[in-house]
Amino acid sequence: MTVSLDDLNALDAEGVVAALDGVYEHAPWVAWEAAARRPFATVAALFAALEAAVLGAHEETRRRLLINHPPLGRRKGGSVPVAEASASEHAGAGLDDLEAQEFDRYAALNAAYQSRFGFPFVLCIRRHGKASILRQFERRLDGAPAEELATGIAEVNRIAALRLAERMTGPGPLARHGRLSTHVLDTAAGRPAAGVRIELMELGAGAPRLIADAVTNADGRVEGGLIAGRPVPIATYELLFHVGAHFRASGDGGGDPAFLDVIPVRFGVSEPEGTYHVPLTVSPFAYATYRGS
Amino acid sequence: MTVSLDDLNALDAEGVVAALDGVYEHAPWVAWEAAARRPFATVAALFAALEAAVLGAHEETRRRLLINHPPLGRRKGGSVPVAEASASEHAGAGLDDLEAQEFDRYAALNAAYQSRFGFPFVLCIRRHGKASILRQFERRLDGAPAEELATGIAEVNRIAALRLAERMTGPGPLARHGRLSTHVLDTAAGRPAAGVRIELMELGAGAPRLIADAVTNADGRVEGGLIAGRPVPIATYELLFHVGAHFRASGDGGGDPAFLDVIPVRFGVSEPEGTYHVPLTVSPFAYATYRGS
Amino acid sequence: MTVSLDDLNALDAEGVVAALDGVYEHAPWVAWEAAARRPFATVAALFAALEAAVLGAHEETRRRLLINHPPLGRRKGGSVPVAEASASEHAGAGLDDLEAQEFDRYAALNAAYQSRFGFPFVLCIRRHGKASILRQFERRLDGAPAEELATGIAEVNRIAALRLAERMTGPGPLARHGRLSTHVLDTAAGRPAAGVRIELMELGAGAPRLIADAVTNADGRVEGGLIAGRPVPIATYELLFHVGAHFRASGDGGGDPAFLDVIPVRFGVSEPEGTYHVPLTVSPFAYATYRGS
Amino acid sequence: MTVSLDDLNALDAEGVVAALDGVYEHAPWVAWEAAARRPFATVAALFAALEAAVLGAHEETRRRLLINHPPLGRRKGGSVPVAEASASEHAGAGLDDLEAQEFDRYAALNAAYQSRFGFPFVLCIRRHGKASILRQFERRLDGAPAEELATGIAEVNRIAALRLAERMTGPGPLARHGRLSTHVLDTAAGRPAAGVRIELMELGAGAPRLIADAVTNADGRVEGGLIAGRPVPIATYELLFHVGAHFRASGDGGGDPAFLDVIPVRFGVSEPEGTYHVPLTVSPFAYATYRGS
Repeated sequence: MTVSLDDLNALDAEGVVAALDGVYEHAPWVAWEAAARRPFATVAALFAALEAAVLGAHEETRRRLLINHPPLGRRKGGSVPVAEASASEHAGAGLDDLEAQEFDRYAALNAAYQSRFGFPFVLCIRRHGKASILRQFERRLDGAPAEELATGIAEVNRIAALRLAERMTGPGPLARHGRLSTHVLDTAAGRPAAGVRIELMELGAGAPRLIADAVTNADGRVEGGLIAGRPVPIATYELLFHVGAHFRASGDGGGDPAFLDVIPVRFGVSEPEGTYHVPLTVSPFAYATYRGS
Repeated sequence: MTVSLDDLNALDAEGVVAALDGVYEHAPWVAWEAAARRPFATVAALFAALEAAVLGAHEETRRRLLINHPPLGRRKGGSVPVAEASASEHAGAGLDDLEAQEFDRYAALNAAYQSRFGFPFVLCIRRHGKASILRQFERRLDGAPAEELATGIAEVNRIAALRLAERMTGPGPLARHGRLSTHVLDTAAGRPAAGVRIELMELGAGAPRLIADAVTNADGRVEGGLIAGRPVPIATYELLFHVGAHFRASGDGGGDPAFLDVIPVRFGVSEPEGTYHVPLTVSPFAYATYRGS
Repeated sequence: MTVSLDDLNALDAEGVVAALDGVYEHAPWVAWEAAARRPFATVAALFAALEAAVLGAHEETRRRLLINHPPLGRRKGGSVPVAEASASEHAGAGLDDLEAQEFDRYAALNAAYQSRFGFPFVLCIRRHGKASILRQFERRLDGAPAEELATGIAEVNRIAALRLAERMTGPGPLARHGRLSTHVLDTAAGRPAAGVRIELMELGAGAPRLIADAVTNADGRVEGGLIAGRPVPIATYELLFHVGAHFRASGDGGGDPAFLDVIPVRFGVSEPEGTYHVPLTVSPFAYATYRGS
Repeated sequence: MTVSLDDLNALDAEGVVAALDGVYEHAPWVAWEAAARRPFATVAALFAALEAAVLGAHEETRRRLLINHPPLGRRKGGSVPVAEASASEHAGAGLDDLEAQEFDRYAALNAAYQSRFGFPFVLCIRRHGKASILRQFERRLDGAPAEELATGIAEVNRIAALRLAERMTGPGPLARHGRLSTHVLDTAAGRPAAGVRIELMELGAGAPRLIADAVTNADGRVEGGLIAGRPVPIATYELLFHVGAHFRASGDGGGDPAFLDVIPVRFGVSEPEGTYHVPLTVSPFAYATYRGS
């Protein structure tokens, strides 16, 4: 359920709390405090008020904000009642149906973290691929308690920012999204390569996870980008460009097997809010790629 | 055991037969007939004489030449007494320790081919990767009997040519080899990238098969090439260039994970006797590759 | 003076003729005939009506339409009273201040054409560079009279289409423009190269003619493109990318002189209404370019 | 006239002086002193002996070694009797037929240098293009006298090393040469581009100077390299690859003018003894180049 900034500004404080329910999990007090600063000129201003409320709260209150968060990872077929937003975030990161062995690893890490710091491990998982989540977990288990409280709260605010961006319409959108896009150019023909199938995989410890499966349009691009309107999770990806069919169609195949058929391009994303344009310029016997803009 | 052309020319006919034992499996008559044309100026001339003896033989004799060949594929841990050359050729193609399921597929294909044509399927397996061997098998099962006899004999001659090249020293080497090589250039530094680990994998239906694991020298090349002095088997390959460590060493890594770390380059080889130079020109955020010479 | 489509539709026929004065030189009858088909839903529909009037006219009338056109080329410092639109078109193509020798060549070609066909050589010069204009002149001098009448009229309509696009505002713009743009990416740093000076030269028989002199913005692009909102004249161009200063600034220069300093990229344009995106991906020791989209 | 190291070792001291006449201009004493160290195992050892004789000489003797050198630059049509080696070195650098204005500039620089330091400006001009020679001149005019004496002597030794390499045959060649080469690969066809005309120009203040005009062989290379067996003069170069005809021949031209016809690649050489491999990978609508090895 979305709400416009104008409508939000017109609500009373209770209405604001209801409208922003779940942006901060089990913590209506955040919206309540921020509501005092109405009206908000932009969504960014609204978020700044929410963030200020959190950062200005007593240490114990902030600690309790973390405690409200569910543990990371769901067993395949398991059912833990969690907030709706949290559930879809888990699914996006592939944490919603872990195999037994993987789930046990998360459970052990959750327990270790909880026992060391007294609050659960909180991470804005929409900014991370699976391998990156585990690296964060291991790194943060070594942190100092005061730092971990601050880091956990910063992650709570990142989670809230993304949830808020989905909730709100109207002026001043809070855009902290990244973008992953591609473009296929046939340099033998001097035109975009249309109709080329492209798969995007997230690589990690286990089997690759299919993130997108698309076909280039007349301009050689994937309509709307491969990842857009959300952070690009920190991870290693592989794009698979199925160019063999394209060149066979123009009679340029050459050889059985052809020199080029499926072209993998493997790259790392370290800035989830960054722009990753990864084009392919390709002829039947050569190709190039780069991080573009 | 190798023999020089001069020494061979000096032998009597029985000596020539002994010296060339196994070049044509269980068929001393081929060397015997060719021996009449001594002396040979070059190894190529010697091979031409052997080939002429085979092609000029009675149809039934040629058929028997095929019948002498062992079936394709060895079960893991199994022991079928085969000629030494054939055994090492099987090992090179990864056909010497097939899992039960894979072995059963080869056994079925061997049986079907034998039953249809009355002689075994013969293929110069040093010119093919595993997937290509299966494609050949399936394609040739549909052939006409007369064509298959001719094709099988042509493959016998290809096998003999490679065995002969290993057996002989001296003038006029019979060179029908291919070559696969690479070169890594750091285009940010303007010099060859030394010390870069490169893996060469053969791709197929099952798990990738490691063919070479090497490190670039000071000139950014792999000493002696990746495949040289033999045909490059028809197959799809993947080169894995481990450039991440190289760029981290020069302080150019950038990001965690870095944009480029392990770069896969996937390409097909269709001409086993061709030259495949597949270089990589790479900077921390871009790379290009092509079929060079 | 521009006019909106709505205003034009509201005028009487005389008003339409006045509003479109000069779109067809000295030929008010074209607008007069087209005016009968008001109202026009789009500028494209208006142009179709004008074109239909021209193509439907008697041969003698069409011939007179050509005769109204001024000869090509103006002597440096000379003054021939010509229609305002024609004057600016001449200036754009560099035909407005020819040196004596060059002017004499145009004068001779104009005279030869006029004497052969009985009407002047007409060409939509906004679609051609200087060298292409001369090639057209020489090619068309060999044409058959009937073809040349048709070709000249087609060029009159091309000239009119471009003039009309400038005259009209409102729905359905008549867009038959091309575009020439570029983009500079620093592949060592993985970002657009900002602040890079780029010159665009038109090459021909004489000295190169500077067409644009620009600096890349934060996204590595030239704001608004190098040529936009008009056809890209048929010609050979050279882009000069001054990348030396960019790499020196990031400490990557290397060598005196540096390996790369000013990078020329020379290319031909044959489709004036096409899109020519000519990017440069560059590191201190390598670069690539291609026709993009 | 060349001499082998064995023959030189067998000569008496006067013979050595005669055999090495002109390696150090008007300075027989250098060879005379070095002769005492016979026999020489390699040409490099011989050169080390000559260099040691020079560096060990009294300051006044070293100064006189510089004084023996002729001024830089010859007027077009002028005749100054100079040593034969010096004359051919002047011709190689394009300093042997200067126009009046250019000659005057050199004359003024020679005079200024002579008047400031008391000895002429000496430079190993085979290591420099014309523009680099002038830059050196201007830079060194600002030097301190003691430094200039040392720099001049170092240049005398560089000149001698190159002259000695031409004079001597036999073991241990003194190789301090550079190399400039290229390679053209057609990435649409996956093969070397044979028969492509390549011009190499040296750029400078005036008109470009043609250094080489060659055609690629079947492997897409220029036989023997573009510059080999001598230093590559410090300069800015432009390679002009005439690829248009190549693509037209394979029916890939496209457009009039074609997108790619003559491709200029401009690059700087700063290490005369370095290896500069500057290949072109090209399809009808894209190309790339880099400093290879």
